[in-house]
Amino acid sequence: MEQFPELKNDLLLRALKGEQVERPPVWMMRQAGRFLPDYRVLKEKYSFFERCQSPELVSEITIMPIDQVGTDAAILFSDILVIPQALGYEVQMIAQKGPFLPKTVKSLKDAKNIIVPDASDKLSYVMEAIKLTRHNLNGKVPLIGFAGAPFTVLCYMVQGQGSKDFSQAKAFCHQEKEAAHLLLQKITTLTIDYLNEQIKAGAQAVQLFDSWAGLLSPQDFNEFALPYIKQIMEKVEGAPTIIFAKGAWYAIKDLVDTGCNAIGVDWVLTPKQARNLAGSDVTLQGNFDPSWLFAPHKEIERLTIKMIDEFGKDKYIANLGHGILPNVPVENAKTFINTIKNYRG
Amino acid sequence: MEQFPELKNDLLLRALKGEQVERPPVWMMRQAGRFLPDYRVLKEKYSFFERCQSPELVSEITIMPIDQVGTDAAILFSDILVIPQALGYEVQMIAQKGPFLPKTVKSLKDAKNIIVPDASDKLSYVMEAIKLTRHNLNGKVPLIGFAGAPFTVLCYMVQGQGSKDFSQAKAFCHQEKEAAHLLLQKITTLTIDYLNEQIKAGAQAVQLFDSWAGLLSPQDFNEFALPYIKQIMEKVEGAPTIIFAKGAWYAIKDLVDTGCNAIGVDWVLTPKQARNLAGSDVTLQGNFDPSWLFAPHKEIERLTIKMIDEFGKDKYIANLGHGILPNVPVENAKTFINTIKNYRG
Repeated sequence: MEQFPELKNDLLLRALKGEQVERPPVWMMRQAGRFLPDYRVLKEKYSFFERCQSPELVSEITIMPIDQVGTDAAILFSDILVIPQALGYEVQMIAQKGPFLPKTVKSLKDAKNIIVPDASDKLSYVMEAIKLTRHNLNGKVPLIGFAGAPFTVLCYMVQGQGSKDFSQAKAFCHQEKEAAHLLLQKITTLTIDYLNEQIKAGAQAVQLFDSWAGLLSPQDFNEFALPYIKQIMEKVEGAPTIIFAKGAWYAIKDLVDTGCNAIGVDWVLTPKQARNLAGSDVTLQGNFDPSWLFAPHKEIERLTIKMIDEFGKDKYIANLGHGILPNVPVENAKTFINTIKNYRG
Repeated sequence: MEQFPELKNDLLLRALKGEQVERPPVWMMRQAGRFLPDYRVLKEKYSFFERCQSPELVSEITIMPIDQVGTDAAILFSDILVIPQALGYEVQMIAQKGPFLPKTVKSLKDAKNIIVPDASDKLSYVMEAIKLTRHNLNGKVPLIGFAGAPFTVLCYMVQGQGSKDFSQAKAFCHQEKEAAHLLLQKITTLTIDYLNEQIKAGAQAVQLFDSWAGLLSPQDFNEFALPYIKQIMEKVEGAPTIIFAKGAWYAIKDLVDTGCNAIGVDWVLTPKQARNLAGSDVTLQGNFDPSWLFAPHKEIERLTIKMIDEFGKDKYIANLGHGILPNVPVENAKTFINTIKNYRG
């Protein structure tokens, strides 16, 4: 394994291990991206997947928020849809609209035809980017890798684009159950390989994003989401794991039981409810409503302190309850970050 | 008050009173509309608001599902956005996109400038439609009236169109708190008047739709949604009330305490969880995942029976957990309805 500069700020890793900390670490989902003016400059010059595929650009974008707003962790700039790409499904990023897959999975035959590649082959550019980023970070903060959870990736591979309810993808799961499970298994197999490769390349923690889990009923979650998350948690090794299944509050206990180190929670749950559901052993991460970052500075401070008071200083990673919104003023994000850094509960 | 034909099927009203029933009543949110081929014919001929504003068309569309799929209640064909219209905000319905408000509420000044009219004046066409529909229904089933809950109506008046997260509307609540509360109060005042007029005109039950409640944290729900729902429940008289706050499972107990007769629940909650949260007194309504209507018939039957078994036959109204999807085959909806009608738990 490659040698990297020594880590100076290990707050995130200590919180993930459940150790006592002076104050909670903080990072923000989607911090490497759209809300930063310097990112928007790069966005004008390079297409989305050019940005994802160039190790130099990934490294630059990943490190931006560390220097500019001072988070305690870096999260790799990438996208959950690199998995469909590696499975042979083209993904286009359309301005103002989001992802679009010209070809989608429609049948058992389609699912059978998918060939699962080696992550070290098809996704080697991600591993190169991780290595470069670890060097360029120079040990300032740890680097988080990530992947989409299988159900969320299926949503895009079946529906072909973003959706308010992903009803087409959900209908597919019931109409073509065998195809859905085969597709989920292929995504899972590649995701396990992918996350293990990320860790080998230098990711110091990994997060699994089940962004659309909350669209599922508990019984569908138990059938189409949880078994695949379990497999991933069983087989990913070498770094602490965070699961963020947005909206799936009802599954928190089951997710804890997969053996992950931390559970991400959204703002539709109070910190107390989250802790009651999760039990006392696991670390929790979240759950500031991203729209609150538009509030006046005093109000951001008040809401941030209230959140930490309610979660408690230990076994806790301060974060938003979902990705930072693109038009948040950088100064407001700094108020959020600095309030946490100054917290001495 | 006008005399209407005698009611033959009172299952819904008995379930709302908590009385014992032979089997649960069933209706489907958005049943008067897009999934019916006969509705789509009218859609080609008349614009959306022509359909809403003509008592003859409203009556025809409202009664369609009673004749064609056999639900136990009719819900008025209308839209929650008639309230912004009555408050002086133009609403356009754009094909494939949904509602669009060219002018939105941006400031305290905008909120102050809104004049609350009499519902009997600006919305008289709705009352005419209710009267005509009651006559044309000929007592077959009861007629449900409805309105949007104030927070959900605010979402559209501030953001001006549909959204995945309504982050702009939510940000407005924190940036312009005074304006938000003034706007919510004006919507509330008109909504109370509107629902009371609907009941006087002949609505036999009314449902309040807080479709976007689930985007709020519990603390924001308590500030921007609940107090206004409470006012409405205190001041609406003469017919049983149903509150459907999609996604706001954490608020179910507080909603029960407003004194409503029934709580609508979505599918992200098991029937047992919903009953535990609601207590034993209130009637529950829901919660079939609309995407399940694409499953094979046998599977629709299985899932429907499981749902009723779990909710129990009494104090229960079978329904979907949100609106029926536009492309559901009519035969599949019939399987759902008939399974409930044949239920003898």
